[in-house]
This record gives sequence, C-alpha cells and structure tokens, in this order.
Amino acid sequence: AWKGEGEQDFWWCIEKCVAEDGWKPNLILDDGGDATHFMLKYHPAVFKKIVGIVEESVTGVHRLYQLSKTGKLCVPAMNVNDSVTKQKFDNLYSCRESILDGLKRTTDVMFGGKSVSVCGYGEVGKGCAAALKGMGAIVTVTEIDPICALQACMDGFRVQTIEDIADTADVFITCTGNRNVITRKHMDKMKNGAVVANMGHSNTEIEVSSLKTKDLVWEKVRSQVDHIIWQDGKRIVLLAEGRLLNYSCSSVPSFVLSVTACTQALALIEMFNAPEGRYKQDVYLLPKKMDEYVASLHLPQFNAHLTELSDDQAKYLGLQKSGPFKPAYYRY
Amino acid sequence: AWKGEGEQDFWWCIEKCVAEDGWKPNLILDDGGDATHFMLKYHPAVFKKIVGIVEESVTGVHRLYQLSKTGKLCVPAMNVNDSVTKQKFDNLYSCRESILDGLKRTTDVMFGGKSVSVCGYGEVGKGCAAALKGMGAIVTVTEIDPICALQACMDGFRVQTIEDIADTADVFITCTGNRNVITRKHMDKMKNGAVVANMGHSNTEIEVSSLKTKDLVWEKVRSQVDHIIWQDGKRIVLLAEGRLLNYSCSSVPSFVLSVTACTQALALIEMFNAPEGRYKQDVYLLPKKMDEYVASLHLPQFNAHLTELSDDQAKYLGLQKSGPFKPAYYRY
Amino acid sequence: AWKGEGEQDFWWCIEKCVAEDGWKPNLILDDGGDATHFMLKYHPAVFKKIVGIVEESVTGVHRLYQLSKTGKLCVPAMNVNDSVTKQKFDNLYSCRESILDGLKRTTDVMFGGKSVSVCGYGEVGKGCAAALKGMGAIVTVTEIDPICALQACMDGFRVQTIEDIADTADVFITCTGNRNVITRKHMDKMKNGAVVANMGHSNTEIEVSSLKTKDLVWEKVRSQVDHIIWQDGKRIVLLAEGRLLNYSCSSVPSFVLSVTACTQALALIEMFNAPEGRYKQDVYLLPKKMDEYVASLHLPQFNAHLTELSDDQAKYLGLQKSGPFKPAYYRY
Amino acid sequence: AWKGEGEQDFWWCIEKCVAEDGWKPNLILDDGGDATHFMLKYHPAVFKKIVGIVEESVTGVHRLYQLSKTGKLCVPAMNVNDSVTKQKFDNLYSCRESILDGLKRTTDVMFGGKSVSVCGYGEVGKGCAAALKGMGAIVTVTEIDPICALQACMDGFRVQTIEDIADTADVFITCTGNRNVITRKHMDKMKNGAVVANMGHSNTEIEVSSLKTKDLVWEKVRSQVDHIIWQDGKRIVLLAEGRLLNYSCSSVPSFVLSVTACTQALALIEMFNAPEGRYKQDVYLLPKKMDEYVASLHLPQFNAHLTELSDDQAKYLGLQKSGPFKPAYYRY
Repeated sequence: AWKGEGEQDFWWCIEKCVAEDGWKPNLILDDGGDATHFMLKYHPAVFKKIVGIVEESVTGVHRLYQLSKTGKLCVPAMNVNDSVTKQKFDNLYSCRESILDGLKRTTDVMFGGKSVSVCGYGEVGKGCAAALKGMGAIVTVTEIDPICALQACMDGFRVQTIEDIADTADVFITCTGNRNVITRKHMDKMKNGAVVANMGHSNTEIEVSSLKTKDLVWEKVRSQVDHIIWQDGKRIVLLAEGRLLNYSCSSVPSFVLSVTACTQALALIEMFNAPEGRYKQDVYLLPKKMDEYVASLHLPQFNAHLTELSDDQAKYLGLQKSGPFKPAYYRY
Repeated sequence: AWKGEGEQDFWWCIEKCVAEDGWKPNLILDDGGDATHFMLKYHPAVFKKIVGIVEESVTGVHRLYQLSKTGKLCVPAMNVNDSVTKQKFDNLYSCRESILDGLKRTTDVMFGGKSVSVCGYGEVGKGCAAALKGMGAIVTVTEIDPICALQACMDGFRVQTIEDIADTADVFITCTGNRNVITRKHMDKMKNGAVVANMGHSNTEIEVSSLKTKDLVWEKVRSQVDHIIWQDGKRIVLLAEGRLLNYSCSSVPSFVLSVTACTQALALIEMFNAPEGRYKQDVYLLPKKMDEYVASLHLPQFNAHLTELSDDQAKYLGLQKSGPFKPAYYRY
Repeated sequence: AWKGEGEQDFWWCIEKCVAEDGWKPNLILDDGGDATHFMLKYHPAVFKKIVGIVEESVTGVHRLYQLSKTGKLCVPAMNVNDSVTKQKFDNLYSCRESILDGLKRTTDVMFGGKSVSVCGYGEVGKGCAAALKGMGAIVTVTEIDPICALQACMDGFRVQTIEDIADTADVFITCTGNRNVITRKHMDKMKNGAVVANMGHSNTEIEVSSLKTKDLVWEKVRSQVDHIIWQDGKRIVLLAEGRLLNYSCSSVPSFVLSVTACTQALALIEMFNAPEGRYKQDVYLLPKKMDEYVASLHLPQFNAHLTELSDDQAKYLGLQKSGPFKPAYYRY
Repeated sequence: AWKGEGEQDFWWCIEKCVAEDGWKPNLILDDGGDATHFMLKYHPAVFKKIVGIVEESVTGVHRLYQLSKTGKLCVPAMNVNDSVTKQKFDNLYSCRESILDGLKRTTDVMFGGKSVSVCGYGEVGKGCAAALKGMGAIVTVTEIDPICALQACMDGFRVQTIEDIADTADVFITCTGNRNVITRKHMDKMKNGAVVANMGHSNTEIEVSSLKTKDLVWEKVRSQVDHIIWQDGKRIVLLAEGRLLNYSCSSVPSFVLSVTACTQALALIEMFNAPEGRYKQDVYLLPKKMDEYVASLHLPQFNAHLTELSDDQAKYLGLQKSGPFKPAYYRY
C-alpha cells in the first residue's frame, strides 16, 4: 500500500499477489477476505489448489464462515483472529495504551478528574476504561450485555445509559462494534467542548452523517480534529471524523505487531506442514498449543521465567508437560 | 452439615436426601458428585428416573465427564461450574477480597511494601495479585502456561520461578490447582517469618506432609496459624495447615452465594421445564442466555442501567434484542 | 492497661508512673497529655526538673501548644505527632489497610461495585478511598477544603455533599476530625442496609446520640455491630457504636508500631542528649534529620537500596551527604 | 517569545517589558528572575518603586532568597512556586500524564511489561511511577532520601540504585533535580534499545556531554529522538538530548496553565491591594487562603460540590467557615 493509493490501485495489488504470471500461490494470508474472494471469483482453478487460508480480521472470518455455510469453501481456512494472544494484544493491551495516546495527540486533554463515558465493555472497552481510571478520570460504562455490565460494576464503574450521561460527560469513547451508538440526539444534549471518539469498529459507531446538516458548522482545527459548531455556539470535538482513533491518531506498538505476525506465520507453517486430512474444507481456530507457543516466544522480552511441570505434576493434572495447558473453553 | 459432623454423619445426610421413605427425588443438585454417585450406586432405579443433575464443583464436573465417557451417565447433567458469572464470582471477584481478609485475620501482616509470590495466574491468581498490588505489595507471579505468564507481564508482574524467589519473598500464595507447588526444598530456603498460604485447590498445593518430620517443631500460635520452627530457630508461618485460606480464614460474601445459588436454581428449573429431547444423556454447559439472566438479576443491586438494542442495531449485529449477546467461545 | 480497666485504675497507673516513691522521672513520653497535666498539677516540683516531654497525639500536642501560649510550659516539649513518617504510617498507610479489614471482620461486605461515601480527604480519607477504589468500589468524597477536594477530583473521585449521596451510598466512612458529620437527618435518608463507620477522630463524627430515641430499636447482631431499626423496618448497620473502626475492629500492624515507637525513642534520646540551650520552653517538631533516620532504619525490611549523593552532587544541591534532604516546608 | 528567538532578542523583550518609554511598571511577574535582576541592575530607580514581585519558578525563588539574604531585596516578593495547587499541578498531576504522552510521541514504546527505572520519588517521580505502573510497567525507584524511599516501598515499588538496574531496565526516567544522575558509566552498562529521558530539572540530570566522544555515533532518527550507537552496535535511545521530556515532547494541559496563571494573578492583586506594611522587604509564601481560593475556582470544572461547615462545626474545629482550613505545615 502507499499514501494516496486508490480503489483501482488496491485491486491491482491484489491481482499481482494472487495471479502474477509464472507465480503460483499455495497459501493465502488475508486480512479482510478480499484476496480470498478475488481469487475465488476470478481464479477459481488456482484457488482450488491452494493448501489453505489464514485470515486475520473479524470481517474476513465472518466471510469465511459464510462461505463454509454455503458450501463454497473448498479449502481449509484458519481463523487466527480469535487466538488468545492476538485478541488480547490487538484489543485489550493495545487499546489500553492507544486511548491515552490518541486523545493526547489530538486534544491535549487532561485526564485527571474528567468524566468519561466508555460505551461497551468488551476487551477494547475494558482496556480504555482501565487506562482512563488509572489516570484519574471518572469513568462510566454503557453496556447491552448483562454479564459485561456486571463485570464493569465489579471493576468499579457505574453502568449507565448514554442518555443518562449525555449532558454531563466530558469525553465519549465508543467501543461496541455496533452502529449509531452515539446519535445526533445524544450530541444535541452534550455540553460545550465534549470530545467524541471511536475506538470500536470501522466508522459506524458515531452517527457522523447526522452532523452533516445545514444548521451545524464544521471547523477543522487540525489534522484529525473537527469542531462541530451548533447554532448557539456550542462545540463538539469530533476526532478522526468518527473513524478509529487508535489507527488514525495513535500508533500500534511493534510488540503487538510481532504477536500478530508471529501468529500468522505459525498458522501458515502449520497449514503447509499438516499431514493430509488434518484440516478439511472448514474454518479452524488456531490450535491452542500454537497459541501458547506464540506467547512463549514473546516471554524472553520480559525476562520472564516459566515454571516447568514435574512428571508427577503433569500426571496429576492429566497434561502433557509441553502443553496445551487449558481446555478449549478456558477464558483467560 | 453441623460443626463436628463426621464421615458417617455425612453419608447419613446423603442417604436422607436421596432415598428417604416416601420421598422420590426428581432432580439432583450436587457439589462434588457424592450424592450423584451414591444414588447411582445404591439406588440405581431411582437414579434412572431423575430428570437431571446440576453440578457445581470442578471435581463433580470431572466425575460427570468420566461417567459420560464410560457410558454410565443415563440422565442429562448440567455443568454450572463453568458458567461465566459463577466462575468470575467464585474465583476472580471473591478471591480478590478474601486474600486480603484471610491474611489480615490470621497474621495482621501489613501489605504495603511486602514482597509476595503468587503461584498461578488463573482467575484466582489474577484476583490475589491485583488485590495485593492495589495495597502496595510487590507481587511476583509463577506460571507454567505461557499465555497466562504473558498476561501477568502485561499486567505489570514479574514472572519468576518459585526457586528464583523462595529466599526473598515475605508471603507465598498458591493458586494453581496443582500439587506440591511449594515443597520442603522451597521452604528450607525461605526466610524467617515467611507466610505460606493456599488459595487454590484443596490441600494439595503446599507439601505439608514434608513438614511433619522430627527436625521441625510445630507451634500453634492461634486458630489456623502454625509456626513451623527449623532447628536454627527460623519460623515459617503456615496458614490453615495448607487448606484453603479463603474458606478457613475468611468468609464468602452473600453476594457471591447469591450468584451461585441463582445459577443453580435456574439450571434446575431449566432441566425440569425443558421439552423432551432438549437434553440427552450428556453433560451440558449452562445456556448462555441463562448465564446472562443470572447477571441481569444482580445488576439492580448496583443500580446499573442496561442499554437496550434498537431493532436496527440488533439486526446490524445479527442478535436477538434479548440476547444471547456473545458467541460460545467469547472469553469476557 | 488491662481489659476492664476503669477510670480510677487509669489515674492510679498515671500516679505510679510519675511519682512512685524513690523514682524520679526525668522525661515524659505521653500520648494524650494526661501524664503531663497530672504531673504539672500534682507534682509541679518534679515537673520543673524534667528534661523534656515527648508527645505522640493530636490532642496532647494541642494541649501543649495551649500551655505554651499561656506561659505554663516550663520545659521543652517535642511534637512527634507531626513527624512525616509517623503521620504517613499512622494515617495514610495504616488506614489504607484497616478500612478493608475493619469492614470485612464486622460485616463480610463485598467491596466490588459498592457505592461508598468517604467523608474527608485528608491522609486517612486518602488511604480509605484508595483502598476501596482498588477493590472495585465506587467512591465519592465529601470535603470542606477546596484544595483537598481538588486532589480528590484529580485522583478520580466525584466530590459531593453528604446530602447528595445519603440516599444512594451503600457504605459511609467518616475521616474528618470534625463532629456531627453524619447526622440523624442523613441517616433518616439512608437506604436499608447502609453501613456507617468512623475512621476519623474519637467518637464525635457520627451523631450516635441522635439514634438513641424511642422510635428506633437497637439490635446488637455481634460484637461491634449494631442494627439500628427504623419503624418501617429499615436497618442501618452501625459499627463500633461510632468509635474508631481501625482500633475497635481491626489491628495496627507491628510495622506501624515500630515506626511510631522508634520516633518516640529517638525523640527521647535527642532531648536527653541535647546540649544545654538547644531546646527552650517551647514545643518543637522532630528535627527532619531524625525523621529521615527513622525512615532509614525501616528500609532494610524492604531490602531497599538507598542511593548516596556524590560529593559533587551534594555540592550542586547545597546539601550535606547525610541529610537532611528537604526544606522544612516540603510536603512529601 | 517566538520560534528562533535568540539571546539578544530575549533581552530586548525584557528591556521592553521593564523600561519602555512612558511606561512605569509597578509589579513584576517573573519566571526565572531575569526581569527582576535586569531591572535591579539597569533600572534601580524603577525597581525601588515597584509594589512587589511575584515569582513562579524554583530558580527565580532561589535567586530571591539570595537577594533577601544579602539585603538587596528592597521590595516585597511572593514565592508562588511553592503554593500547594501550583506544586501539585505543575509536578504531580501534569507529569503523571506527560510522561506517557512524551514517551509515546517519541518512541511508540508499549508500556505493558516494560521494566522502568524512575530516578527520584518527589512529586514528579511519584506522578511518573504511578502512571507507568497503572499501564502495566514494572517500575523500580532510586532515591537518596530515606523518607521518599520508604514512601516508594509503601506504594509498591522496589527501591534500588541505578547501578543495580542499569543493565536490565528498558526505560530510564530522571526526576531528581540533581545532576549527573545517569552517567556514561551507567549508559555503558545499559542494554540495546534502552530509552533514556529526563523529566526533572533543566538538562543536567543525564550526563549528555559524556556521550559526545569519538567512539560513539549519534544518529537523529526523528525530531527529539537520537540513537547513540556504541562500537559493538548497541543503541541507546536518548530523548530531547536530555532536556525536559514534558516540555520538549509533550504539552502542558490548559487546565494546568489555568491553575498557574490564576495563582499568579491573585498574587499580583494581593500585593497591589495589600494594606501598607502587610508585606515587607522579604519573600513570602502565597497566603493559604488564596491557595484555597485558586482551588475553589477550579472545582466547578469537575462539577464538584464542596461541603460547608456549620457554625457549630467551625467552632469545634476553631476555624473560620471561609478558611483557611489547614495549619501552615499541613502536607496534603
């Protein structure tokens, strides 16, 4: 990819990757499913012969499950999006840091004492809420899922609706994966200077389109920062036009990329080396042992000393000494 | 149960529950599996006719899966041990509080500045480590699982082996579910006044038997607190003789019991009311929707306001407005 | 002192300390000022000849300053109550731990998610608020001093009045040093099951006398725990009848006592060894260098390694290499 | 001031401020003491007639006390640097945020699991250590003052010397006010990739001159970030060439500036309005009541509700209802 790359360029790149002359891909490493679907559609003969697909993203995984359901997935695919280390690093640990970074780089807001509404208490919301609380903000959580809501309570956050808090919070962060979580109606109630940002999914969470009306004035105060001005002079500070704050206004630490890339590489090697028949025409989760292996490769960075099971202990627990150490449903 | 209840009394109670004259049980609510196995062995005719079993404990669930494997489970059973709310409350949230309480009631130890080794970073270890860190202790974690070890790193804990830390830590807490995690060899290295306690499983984690040798003197300094005295005068403070600190020296908050009892009651109702054929002769996890229901029943206690999905949002997410809200593999 | 000691016994003890036959005290180590005033009143000749007084408590120090103002303090006195280490350990660090311990031992209340009103944000309030927040409680602070109130904001606590929060909080903790901070009017508004406890000064903070009316029933549910029952059945849980929770229902760690006793001992030695004329008939603060010495004596317990100034650095900072390291007004 | 302003420009500005034709300053608002000393030296007649000086900085205050000692301070001066709110906001609260911001903007380092050495545990060090701990870093503190070292222990930090930690820490932050806290000898021992930054005083804390030797190569990787490359290829990441990270690579929140400016303005008004004789030719601390007033003016931003003393309570405490609320030596 390059700065200023257009839609046509994008597909030209994909084309070069999947079907350049004299080049026979045997594995697909995809992030979003575009390469997969391009090959399936335009080069079905090549597609049928590949060993497998490794897919990174929520969207791409979703598309794979749909292919599988409709019987069109004629090769094995591996969902690495839901591996433990990938999930925790991409969501909880990375966002715990980028929420602070993204807000500071764009607004220089002081966190101490600020009233912040974190919408959604999944991994991303948990990371954002913990970081902001750690810096002295007073965080309120909104949730639709009673289990996550109860977790928020036990972690010391008040659970309210966006309506409850719209006119008092200083900062609003969406982390739901849902759409129209913050609407024009909510923003009409917000106080002057309220900051609105999205850490969740794509650009759907904040109803930005509702702000593009004649009665509101947009003023770009700097890159990624717009003031939306109401007729009475009230200003809302909208970050990244509602796109992802963590990608638009912060950076992803190289350590997170290392975890993700390592997971992808191991999944590709696994698919390539797997004995005939281990993977069928279906979507698989990364084997837990490889998930554990990715983690173990990143421990030396922290000078961490892992404990080894004795033979006696391994027998007592009914485990192999080399893992995997947990049942499939373990929640970490 | 009563204070001073013996082994024989215990089985007498079980007998009364499962097979009293004129009493036909139709459901078993078990915690450990003893009632289940007693009825299966001594009253197989009654057993065959019960509608289902609801089992609470790790051990009992383990025994059910064994029955199932060997084809002896002729009725449906529900594993409520692994429901989300039960797990989080019994382990993470409850132990986060009882570790402090248990240590204070027995030893009056000051937490600030203390060096503490938490062995195992599962739910219990996470709770203990967070609480102690919150009180100003310097916590080191031991782990066998590289994923949990990496979580400990990201949460700000140094990961070391028990050998690394045996001669410097002030307090040792086991939370592994394993056996002989702290052995005589480790305790020989500990410094004078070190406190050793078990928050994990049963009484297996600390090798207490190894302390019952002629060269060591035991001195009971108060209920649940023993000094083990080495020949050079060194004293180790052993709590609850290596049994569970959280049960022996603390209490379980009524809120935790409410979550657990509510889960059990709902599981019993579900099994009783379920249409023919929903549950077969197998072990089931609590349906997620009921897990969410248990959570929702406990939210008013915190005056929490849950957000409701709009029709539009529910459709966008592909969810029912009443839940369940998460896929089965969601980790919370 | 002994269990069941009466008022008369108390004064008998004092008498024995200050004026036993054949015994000539040369220093007074006092906690509250009773020995000092007893000797001044009944044994003025002995009093005049003592080398100095070391006073530990807020009240005693207050009485010394009054003596000084009225010209009756004919010997030097040292206020060790306001030494840095004594203040921090007796108030901030000790109460941070005893608030959790005191509440658990008396009520087994779960902290997670509880709404707690901490009245007063001095050292004690700061300790209580931090500990409860660390355990997942949602803490609101009340304050009269705008500086402390602003500190509470920056630490992430909402600042409200007791009236704002009286009908919603689950737990009320007073730490103000003031009187009638929680009155009958407030308690009339509290919800059923609210817990009320005092961590501040003496027994003045909660207006207990206002609860001793005919329309309320007291029920002692266990030692130090009373239910006060309103006519509509509402119950308030009053701990230690409004006396200090940290002394009545918790314990003081030996480490705190060590800091305090060490400070007292050093102050006594200083007064005894001081060259003629260093201390006049006035009240003095502990010399900062001795405050630092008390701290340094307690560092080995934590295996702490202090850095030593180089000659060059000491010169640059204008300090002696052995301290004192801070100006008198330094706030720590 | 303007970008590219030179030394000569600087003094030209000062000249314009203190002695422009037809302009008679009656108060000095200084930050560093340059205006004060310029006027004293070149316009002594004007100087003698000013009502007072308000000085903001550590350095300027130090110079004022020297003038006072040598009898050259012929007008009153107010030290606003040591007001409570100014100190807490400029140091503790502001640095708690800018340490994270400064490190992220320059290096994108992930905080989780990083080993960080914070040198100095005054207000700045306390802020840095708390923020980094909150983000999952493992923080070690170095200190020369045993009281601050003991505070670090009680806050859960290991206290070590820079020598102890030089070869293992990932990030080094100086906050001491001292010079040559990190020397070439320490940096020779550091591991590849170690980050070195200064949050303390001026540019003295890191011995940068010792890195300007022939055997080391400097490579500027981006603005404010230099790699210092050892002959074996080891790289140290030096931020802002050892100048203040918080000013060079972060920003000061407007709220902090508001507190500071408000304090200065009130001090100017106080000096101007003070009755003859209230302030003599000396250096004064800001009256506590004004310190409290600054705080009270900033509370509405947080929607904080202050409690008012009743007449009865004010009398009990021996306070005016409008403050000041604390003795001069109170440490907050």
